[in-house]
Amino acid sequence: MFNFKDVYLTDYFIVAGPLEKEHDVKKCDMYIDDYYFGEKTVEDAEIKMQRTVLNNLVNSNTELIIGGDLTNQLTALGSSTINKNIPVLGIYSACATMSASFLTLAGFIQGKFIREGIFLTSSHNLAAEKQFRFPVEYGAPKPYRSTFTATAAVGIKLSKTSSKIKVVNGLLGKVIDSYVKDVHNMGAIMAPGAATTLVDYLNQSKTEVKDYDLIITGDLGSTGSEIFKEILKKEHNIKINNHLDAGAIFYKDFEYAGASGPAVLPLILVTRIFNNKKYKKILCLATGSLHSPVLVNQKHSVPTICHAIYLEVV
Amino acid sequence: MFNFKDVYLTDYFIVAGPLEKEHDVKKCDMYIDDYYFGEKTVEDAEIKMQRTVLNNLVNSNTELIIGGDLTNQLTALGSSTINKNIPVLGIYSACATMSASFLTLAGFIQGKFIREGIFLTSSHNLAAEKQFRFPVEYGAPKPYRSTFTATAAVGIKLSKTSSKIKVVNGLLGKVIDSYVKDVHNMGAIMAPGAATTLVDYLNQSKTEVKDYDLIITGDLGSTGSEIFKEILKKEHNIKINNHLDAGAIFYKDFEYAGASGPAVLPLILVTRIFNNKKYKKILCLATGSLHSPVLVNQKHSVPTICHAIYLEVV
Repeated sequence: MFNFKDVYLTDYFIVAGPLEKEHDVKKCDMYIDDYYFGEKTVEDAEIKMQRTVLNNLVNSNTELIIGGDLTNQLTALGSSTINKNIPVLGIYSACATMSASFLTLAGFIQGKFIREGIFLTSSHNLAAEKQFRFPVEYGAPKPYRSTFTATAAVGIKLSKTSSKIKVVNGLLGKVIDSYVKDVHNMGAIMAPGAATTLVDYLNQSKTEVKDYDLIITGDLGSTGSEIFKEILKKEHNIKINNHLDAGAIFYKDFEYAGASGPAVLPLILVTRIFNNKKYKKILCLATGSLHSPVLVNQKHSVPTICHAIYLEVV
Repeated sequence: MFNFKDVYLTDYFIVAGPLEKEHDVKKCDMYIDDYYFGEKTVEDAEIKMQRTVLNNLVNSNTELIIGGDLTNQLTALGSSTINKNIPVLGIYSACATMSASFLTLAGFIQGKFIREGIFLTSSHNLAAEKQFRFPVEYGAPKPYRSTFTATAAVGIKLSKTSSKIKVVNGLLGKVIDSYVKDVHNMGAIMAPGAATTLVDYLNQSKTEVKDYDLIITGDLGSTGSEIFKEILKKEHNIKINNHLDAGAIFYKDFEYAGASGPAVLPLILVTRIFNNKKYKKILCLATGSLHSPVLVNQKHSVPTICHAIYLEVV
């Protein structure tokens, strides 16, 4: 368990995609109207989305940029930060990159190595589909249990400067085998990871589910959320009524299981959760499906990981 | 600059490949005789190399495993750590993953979040070639400026427990554009990164090149080392006589520019540098070429990064 005393969430900036706008993902700072964002490739579009976030968040107090994305070898982060003249640390935990970056950045601030920094996560639907599932079988419908990689880039600033959102503590998760090989079913892959980390977190913090106003996962989707709750009930005798999944609530009237991508959970947090007065004590569980085309083609089951961050809104 | 007071390097374990054994890379704990290591794929071989390292280093005091490799989306780390029941954090900085992991782990120990952890980096020549350069043009000779991805996995234990190797401080680097598009010439790509971080490090630590017994880079190779020294001389008026490059000294009588891979620098450090009585004050600059097949195919120049770690041997 990492405990923080002097770490606050002080600012953020979000660029979201056209489907996100259409599906009423509200209060983003900016939307892009087409997937190319004026660039020649979707990869360059994702790099530009990240740069746009950084251009709106970085200032003279920014001592570190940390984070990652779903592109091959973190190409987007490596390119968006070129010549920014600020140290950069790349983190990879698939969709759990959000909480891994959050926790690492908070750790560096609490450890007095820096006073302020930004963590940045993004995904671009077309860039991610190319990375993880290319060549796709064009024309084949996806199963309903699939999540749809969101197009968004989110930067969040953490600082020693006090704000209404306090970063209280967090837990890095363990890698576990999901025994699932179907990469469309990321919810089933990641649900055991989320359950394991939640149980570890409750044990180590000596708290119970009811001590939180909200336990938010990202991104199990609607399918994975059901599995998550079932595992908790059957294996751990934990009943959870205060749960939302960022992926499952991301799109409205969506035919698949919801959204996925490392930007989904932070986006939902800053636009819907922090300004909802119901939620003061928020436990975030960002889940990751640690697959790659190589692993999948070699018929391995997909490992999963989940990192926890606990926030208090005052 | 991250300053550490209570962080020590206390143990390590190395598994190296057949070419490494043949080329007299000495004092590794274990060598594999063939690239498959009893597995069906080279990727599984790399996973097994990492697991072997962990099986020999992890004990009840290990609170965190951190690190990365060159496989697609850190598949190797994600798979080698399955069911280890220890928290895992994935870092990606290409070959600079070594110092990025080193610094992050040291930061977590100094910040009192953990007392002991392991960082683990690896590369497998055939897995890396497939990831970065597949489809290769079979039969085409490589240019002499190429480095050859080493096959090795190195785990290093850091701890609050005192040892003869003290981790003194470190610096996370900035991403800069190398303006080089030739991915065979990783030395030319990474030399500007190494020079930038060295200059930043000297400025921030208020030290000079002569204050160190050794400035060791990894992995510029012989070609990149020359460029590194030229940049320092021409652009910064710094003459450097106490420099070695881990990649350049890795293989003996080698036709290319040397070895590369995130395991090369830590391997050279623990087997050749720490037990050489000449070197008490060692500044390590691990360099990374932040390329990916996507970036290269889209004709971008390759960004570079370099992170510094300063060690004292007592």
